[in-house]
Amino acid sequence: MEFEKRILDNGLAVISEVNGFAQSAAVGFFVKTGSRDETKQISGVSHFLEHMLFKGTEKLGPLEVNKAFDRLGAQFNAGTGEENTVYHAAVLPEYLADVTHLWTELMRPALRDGDFNMEKNVIKEEIAMYEDTPSFDVIDKCRSLYFESHPCGNSVLGTRESIDALTPKQMHDYFTSRYSPNNMTVAFAGNFNWDKMAELIAQLCGDWRRQNVFRETADYAGTIKAERIQKKNLVREHICLISPAVSMQDERRFAASLLATIVGDNVGSRYFWALVDKALAETATMQRESMDGTGAFYSYIRCSSENLQKVLETVKDIFENLDGKGVTEAELTTARNKILSALVLKNEIPMGRLVSLGFNWIYLGEYRSTEQDIADVKAVTVDDVNSLIRQFKPGRFTKFILGPDSTKTNQT
Amino acid sequence: MEFEKRILDNGLAVISEVNGFAQSAAVGFFVKTGSRDETKQISGVSHFLEHMLFKGTEKLGPLEVNKAFDRLGAQFNAGTGEENTVYHAAVLPEYLADVTHLWTELMRPALRDGDFNMEKNVIKEEIAMYEDTPSFDVIDKCRSLYFESHPCGNSVLGTRESIDALTPKQMHDYFTSRYSPNNMTVAFAGNFNWDKMAELIAQLCGDWRRQNVFRETADYAGTIKAERIQKKNLVREHICLISPAVSMQDERRFAASLLATIVGDNVGSRYFWALVDKALAETATMQRESMDGTGAFYSYIRCSSENLQKVLETVKDIFENLDGKGVTEAELTTARNKILSALVLKNEIPMGRLVSLGFNWIYLGEYRSTEQDIADVKAVTVDDVNSLIRQFKPGRFTKFILGPDSTKTNQT
Repeated sequence: MEFEKRILDNGLAVISEVNGFAQSAAVGFFVKTGSRDETKQISGVSHFLEHMLFKGTEKLGPLEVNKAFDRLGAQFNAGTGEENTVYHAAVLPEYLADVTHLWTELMRPALRDGDFNMEKNVIKEEIAMYEDTPSFDVIDKCRSLYFESHPCGNSVLGTRESIDALTPKQMHDYFTSRYSPNNMTVAFAGNFNWDKMAELIAQLCGDWRRQNVFRETADYAGTIKAERIQKKNLVREHICLISPAVSMQDERRFAASLLATIVGDNVGSRYFWALVDKALAETATMQRESMDGTGAFYSYIRCSSENLQKVLETVKDIFENLDGKGVTEAELTTARNKILSALVLKNEIPMGRLVSLGFNWIYLGEYRSTEQDIADVKAVTVDDVNSLIRQFKPGRFTKFILGPDSTKTNQT
Repeated sequence: MEFEKRILDNGLAVISEVNGFAQSAAVGFFVKTGSRDETKQISGVSHFLEHMLFKGTEKLGPLEVNKAFDRLGAQFNAGTGEENTVYHAAVLPEYLADVTHLWTELMRPALRDGDFNMEKNVIKEEIAMYEDTPSFDVIDKCRSLYFESHPCGNSVLGTRESIDALTPKQMHDYFTSRYSPNNMTVAFAGNFNWDKMAELIAQLCGDWRRQNVFRETADYAGTIKAERIQKKNLVREHICLISPAVSMQDERRFAASLLATIVGDNVGSRYFWALVDKALAETATMQRESMDGTGAFYSYIRCSSENLQKVLETVKDIFENLDGKGVTEAELTTARNKILSALVLKNEIPMGRLVSLGFNWIYLGEYRSTEQDIADVKAVTVDDVNSLIRQFKPGRFTKFILGPDSTKTNQT
């Protein structure tokens, strides 16, 4: 594996990891923009814009875009989050230049008014669908309660109202300022010729105009609040808990992942043995989510209304025990094996390497090999995890519950 | 990549493909048994038995099994089909011996009466769940209509009645005759020491007793029938079409895959442009499913009752056109790129290689590298696909429709 990089004069970063033994190649365009970079007035514009890129350019209509990916046999996708909008494709090595060329065209979209107005309905349907998915909705609502006015609490999809009110001009302006080359990274992974790809990007993207780009990244302590909302159609209690954790730039992020795995991996964790194995909850998981300058632990638990009280007491016990006694060497060993195995399996394919490559560059401005990540996970000690518990106190969380309206248990 | 094999005295096949550059390793136990090897009296026993293996051995209880996989950080799973029951795990190389040892223990299960009776309810819940999933149910019902009394039409899950009536003795007998070492293949892929793993299997499985094992593999022409069933809770028409195709042993299987992709890939296919892009159907796909000695093309289409008639007419037109004019060079090129890219991406990870390795051995008794498969896909010509169409006539299908009971369109 060799790392290569080249920064164009307009600020566009081109990075790559060549693996001559791979049989495929992957390319990704990472745009450092997401819901946290939006104001209330344009809430949802990042995600909406991602949809609009597939509507094509002045030269290519939506149908031609579809056919072009199809002809190359490309496995492609895109996604928008709080902090990044990522476009990627995996292809046979001989089609990497063609699919890269296609993406560079899509990155300078036509943003036609007609497509914009049609696509509003697709976005509003997506909003409706997610509102009807309580496991998603409860996390969105809890995030908003936890982050309050901090931009990390912004919804990725936006609201029906913000989407309805959005104008083509607002999207154009957002596009111009955020899809600026100095706010983007192009990454390649797998089997390809680096010089050829770097030259291709320089040729196709060298004339993209640089803008001033800014992101507010102040850390944020988070609230400690509790709320419960009733919905008629629900038959289960959906619980989300959020507490502070480390940022993407924090070296303790591996220790934080180990802690989340010990507490809330989907099998064999403290949540699993105390809640799922005892049939108190149907599912109970905890994850570490690190962001630019801040981070949080997220728990999601689903149970019957009948068990709600007992589940909340058990969660309280789990965190009190954790705070008092810490984790054990045996727990750390099991969690380490799980994380290492997931890490290695994910990074064995060019698509997996691409994502690691891109995010390490965006958040850390550095290249990290899979071996470095493995070594860092292996180096975490019980003391590291326990000092994280003492400092971050994961039992002090903001809690949001979505539940049926007919329940007798209405305390939060 | 090096292929290695060793056949133990009791008939157990141990095969492997070592890839010194992989960072993980995978192991799989392939048992050549499934619903087609069952009689009506024991319908569903293969799948039920797969569940029972995780209940442990004389020495290991279900909880210990769970904890053992957990401790190794193993990503593991099992699945039962018409022809095979497969158990597999991917781990870091240093845990391959341990996870292999664990699987060899599970392959000689305790099959306790208490676990057997408890698990019946789990199986019956799974049957109920799939019956409530019309996209699954319609294929199951269509397969049964198409294969009639041929064992390939047997249901994998069985029925509530067959599961209720099943006795521990019947399962024991089935286990003894089917999980015989000469009916099993152990496969390894990824980064590991072949001699060490072959020796481990010889030590742990060398004393498994060989039995006489038999499978009926006569080819089958299939019926050309049509049926429609109404269900109150449905809001859409679910259509399944089945017609004859090539077996796993037939060299034309790559041409058959290309044909299915041209007709029914989920984007860019004839179905896509004529049905999905025109908003007549919500989804429309076709796949080639090859089996031991026989094979079939399966189509699944979902649409509103209002569009049903138009959809069926369009499908008729598609196949008439295909029969009369064949496929084009451009269609073949696009389909080839899609199949090659999916093939390469799947086989880039040890888990993907493991599955190819195992099935090639079971069905063909040979090793095939990814490169051989690529070459065979590339070698298929328009003439090959067109002669397949002339011979198999995919427009002559058995059709099953599951739809709402209030529809005005009740013709099938």
